[in-house]
Amino acid sequence: MNSVKVGLLGLGTVGQGTARVLSDNASEIARRAGRHIQVVSAAVRDVEKAEAQGFNITILTDPQAIVDDPEIDIVCELMGGIDLPLSLVLRAIDNGKHVITANKALIALHGNQIFAAAAKKGVTVAFEPAVAGGIPVIKAIREGLAANNIQWLAGIINGTGNFILTEMRNHGRDFEDVLADAQALGYAEADPTFDVEGIDAAHKLSILASIAFGIPLQFDAVYTEGISEITSKDVAYADELGYSVKHLGIARKSEEGVQMRVHPTLIPKSRLIANVDGVMNAVLVQSDAVGPTLYYGAGAGSDATASAVVADVIDVVRLLSAAPENSVPYLAFQPNELRDLTVLPPEKIVSAYYLRLQAEDKPGVMADVTRILADQGVSLKSILQKKPEGEETAEVILLTHRVEESSMNAAIDQIGALATITDKVQRIRVEALD
Amino acid sequence: MNSVKVGLLGLGTVGQGTARVLSDNASEIARRAGRHIQVVSAAVRDVEKAEAQGFNITILTDPQAIVDDPEIDIVCELMGGIDLPLSLVLRAIDNGKHVITANKALIALHGNQIFAAAAKKGVTVAFEPAVAGGIPVIKAIREGLAANNIQWLAGIINGTGNFILTEMRNHGRDFEDVLADAQALGYAEADPTFDVEGIDAAHKLSILASIAFGIPLQFDAVYTEGISEITSKDVAYADELGYSVKHLGIARKSEEGVQMRVHPTLIPKSRLIANVDGVMNAVLVQSDAVGPTLYYGAGAGSDATASAVVADVIDVVRLLSAAPENSVPYLAFQPNELRDLTVLPPEKIVSAYYLRLQAEDKPGVMADVTRILADQGVSLKSILQKKPEGEETAEVILLTHRVEESSMNAAIDQIGALATITDKVQRIRVEALD
Repeated sequence: MNSVKVGLLGLGTVGQGTARVLSDNASEIARRAGRHIQVVSAAVRDVEKAEAQGFNITILTDPQAIVDDPEIDIVCELMGGIDLPLSLVLRAIDNGKHVITANKALIALHGNQIFAAAAKKGVTVAFEPAVAGGIPVIKAIREGLAANNIQWLAGIINGTGNFILTEMRNHGRDFEDVLADAQALGYAEADPTFDVEGIDAAHKLSILASIAFGIPLQFDAVYTEGISEITSKDVAYADELGYSVKHLGIARKSEEGVQMRVHPTLIPKSRLIANVDGVMNAVLVQSDAVGPTLYYGAGAGSDATASAVVADVIDVVRLLSAAPENSVPYLAFQPNELRDLTVLPPEKIVSAYYLRLQAEDKPGVMADVTRILADQGVSLKSILQKKPEGEETAEVILLTHRVEESSMNAAIDQIGALATITDKVQRIRVEALD
Repeated sequence: MNSVKVGLLGLGTVGQGTARVLSDNASEIARRAGRHIQVVSAAVRDVEKAEAQGFNITILTDPQAIVDDPEIDIVCELMGGIDLPLSLVLRAIDNGKHVITANKALIALHGNQIFAAAAKKGVTVAFEPAVAGGIPVIKAIREGLAANNIQWLAGIINGTGNFILTEMRNHGRDFEDVLADAQALGYAEADPTFDVEGIDAAHKLSILASIAFGIPLQFDAVYTEGISEITSKDVAYADELGYSVKHLGIARKSEEGVQMRVHPTLIPKSRLIANVDGVMNAVLVQSDAVGPTLYYGAGAGSDATASAVVADVIDVVRLLSAAPENSVPYLAFQPNELRDLTVLPPEKIVSAYYLRLQAEDKPGVMADVTRILADQGVSLKSILQKKPEGEETAEVILLTHRVEESSMNAAIDQIGALATITDKVQRIRVEALD
């Protein structure tokens, strides 16, 4: 079968990520999608800079040439702005092409018009990358929660703002100070208004509210307040009172109507979303059947956003390439693409360990234990010794560095056999999950 | 258009939830799916008990009558067990029906056979409810992360085990003690082996590993260790060292092969998943493009699991009812089903508030402030007064209960106008998100 041809409008951060992910993971993606997917061309402003990226694709300066190219099946609009992408997207649709866009402003402001045009032509317009970067939250709400009456949602949907608030809390720094750093690090734009005044979050919130409640897109109706007035004092006092300050987008449906608002918000620290820090994003959705669900991940970044662009491309390709009854393969990969990878036996698995020993309170016990561990190549991260009052024996808690389980098993057997060890050695694995 | 007809095999916890959600949210679901979806019959063991539920559906004792009923389009297998559901599912497929199953053991043990039969007949078999209840994690991995080379995943995928470990940590209680309580509360079965020894989690993990890595289902290859040997001492020591003890299912792909293992695990408390407590589930997925993403929600329960059953039903119906190009509506609801709900102005929104006042350190200031708040119907949750050393003025931090924003605006105007208030009143909204 022919490969599916993709054209990119823009080869900036997200465009480069998309070309890279489709190239780096080409074979894995083809196993999932059922067809090979190939980026054939990209339209850019600066050809020289784009060619220096080294992608094996045609570089053009005329974006119209991409949306008019009869060879191209799917156009990815990754250029930003409003007027030019709007006209290009409408023209691509008119030419019968499927369109993926990462442009939240375009969807929030002109989505109603774009979807009507796409429906008329029978093509797909997908926009997972427009909200919360790589987190598949559009899919989760639109498909995963489709059984539910969705009551409200609350999202940390601007990474720059969350980075600033996290730094303010962790280091007691002031807004202006952290913003300057974020700009230096490339997390914040030279003009940070869109991020810190909540406009970017309001674009995303209007999209989330629409898919959650079945209402038309209406960006103008979102109440928006930024974080520039929050001081390090407020963040510290909130912390003292048991709260985190987060810049939340909140959409809520009630008898009286729908609320859509973006503003700094105190959240009890016990809530999972209060612990979403740094540039990470998360969306908490409250629904009547499933209750609360939360979706967490990177809200921006080159490859992270590309993950959502390419997921949308694969959704289109699965529909193109398979009978409708089987458009998403049961086990994610096409049935004839499942591989029999070796499954490692537990002894071969490398992990860190927590060990708890019950030991007689005699000289030499620790020397014996640490000698056995050293002989098996187990190195120690920390040792905690406890002697509960009135008890004969001491408790020793060890945290080890990572080691193959066969070595740990041998060490535990030998430690357990020591005359000074009075009880079975307790062993629990430790995973940093990083 | 005719409604889509659904038959239920089983009307226990999940079956009742499915019938209830499809009935309670019927109109919202039809707006999303494009067709009305109707449960027509359920096969049960105890007719009298089932009829007492009061659903307006035909109750049968013969499950074969459902899978053979030519009127039925979609069969939901919600009965549990292995041999009988396997033969019923295969027969339903053979009769050209789409099948949804919540049966993790059935998929983990016989999925390869079932999918082959479904592919041959060109019907869908969906199993979102089989893993992590209402969390759309199958969809997230299979579709949302399809661009990624998935490196590893780690899940809290058994709510009973997580409830027990959470109680042990929060109250210093022992395993046996909490288990007895969980059984009394209905969170744990009379025979808790499946849950606490990790067999249930291993069923789910084998499914997650398969869709993440593109390998056939192989339950027998999962290494499994339960939580019954974990003591309250271990949980307390782990806490002291900065860790939570969680019963994790871990699947990891490396050069040497695939690991699949279920065992108690120490995780640094700073990780989001370490803070997933009680009966809640979460799955953390590490992928090459998007990095870490996490999916959190209810892993069990009647309506929560039904949410996933019905989401799968809607996926099938969307494919039945729409052109492939438009199988999932752009804004979740069918284009002609978007509603213009009233959008509330910010003044009508009810919220709790954090206020920070800069006040002269004189008698009567607090009396003035609290009088203004009382007059506007604002009641106080807490007051924190600070007088930074060497400063003339005091800082007063107030947390209020929930009140309409118009009242709060009026109160802030009046407080700001007091002669004793020396700076702009700082106001941040507080949301409990519960």
